[in-house]
Amino acid sequence: MKIALPEWMERVKPPQYADDESAMRYVLALAERNIEEGTGGPFAAALVDENERVIASGVNLVTSLKCSILHAEIVTIMMASERLGTWALAERGRFTLVVTAEPCAMCLGAIPWAGIKRIVMSVRDEDIRAIGFDEGNKPSGWIEHYTSHGIDVTRDVMREEGIKVLGAYVASGAIIYNGD
Amino acid sequence: MKIALPEWMERVKPPQYADDESAMRYVLALAERNIEEGTGGPFAAALVDENERVIASGVNLVTSLKCSILHAEIVTIMMASERLGTWALAERGRFTLVVTAEPCAMCLGAIPWAGIKRIVMSVRDEDIRAIGFDEGNKPSGWIEHYTSHGIDVTRDVMREEGIKVLGAYVASGAIIYNGD
Repeated sequence: MKIALPEWMERVKPPQYADDESAMRYVLALAERNIEEGTGGPFAAALVDENERVIASGVNLVTSLKCSILHAEIVTIMMASERLGTWALAERGRFTLVVTAEPCAMCLGAIPWAGIKRIVMSVRDEDIRAIGFDEGNKPSGWIEHYTSHGIDVTRDVMREEGIKVLGAYVASGAIIYNGD
Repeated sequence: MKIALPEWMERVKPPQYADDESAMRYVLALAERNIEEGTGGPFAAALVDENERVIASGVNLVTSLKCSILHAEIVTIMMASERLGTWALAERGRFTLVVTAEPCAMCLGAIPWAGIKRIVMSVRDEDIRAIGFDEGNKPSGWIEHYTSHGIDVTRDVMREEGIKVLGAYVASGAIIYNGD
């Protein structure tokens, strides 16, 4: 299986210095464009290094590549692993995953395996469920568990803008896909 | 990123009629061979349809393809999605995932998204942790949650043989990789 980013992604440029807010503005723009282009769900992510450089980014590709695994976080981790040549990203630095939405059960499991040390999110679990996407069976107290295992969590960055992007997906009439 | 199965996999033939035990014998053979060939961790999986045919299979490719996402379950779901041309496997039938080991937190999240309706496992969580692999932060009562959401769970199929495969990995001296 070949996992390639949509061609249009090259034309959405990451910020030169990706602090939390400018990185979030970038991934929200990717999510919005993903809706417009019809290449997947309303979700995007980017991996940012300690020098505020975007190392890799990804969008949800479930419908366009026909694979339920291809959430934005998973795609971004795959692209970063390929770029850095390692399954253990922590060996190459302290990376932050900036993501438009609180990760689902699968992606919450994936983030520690990749060696990511910080996560920055826009919309909350309940915002996603409100438009009909399932988030899966998450362990209770996952934020405390992340924190106690060395993964910092920052919530609600540009949450209002994030909710607007979810609304744009609903308005587009695109499919709200779940496992069933 | 291109995800290709190791060439040697073609030479390990699936059973013609993959009932739980013959399917488990097959995936344990894949896991054993994955150790011998040095292509990844001691884990393998196969997706079996209602007619006991193996639709897709996969092995852990984390170290050989340098990507933390590539657990055996994920690889198998990707291969099955590509073969069946859908992100919603339930649309094509009622599939069973036969896996050598109880899935980690990430893979437990992934299985419902794929629309898989049954899981058959060999070794338990504690057998995997005993050799040093982390299983992640799983939701408590996940088996009951699966069952109540229409996913049947069968445990301990050829567990002793499964534990021997884990032991072979330790004896091989290969890396016990985790997120850190």
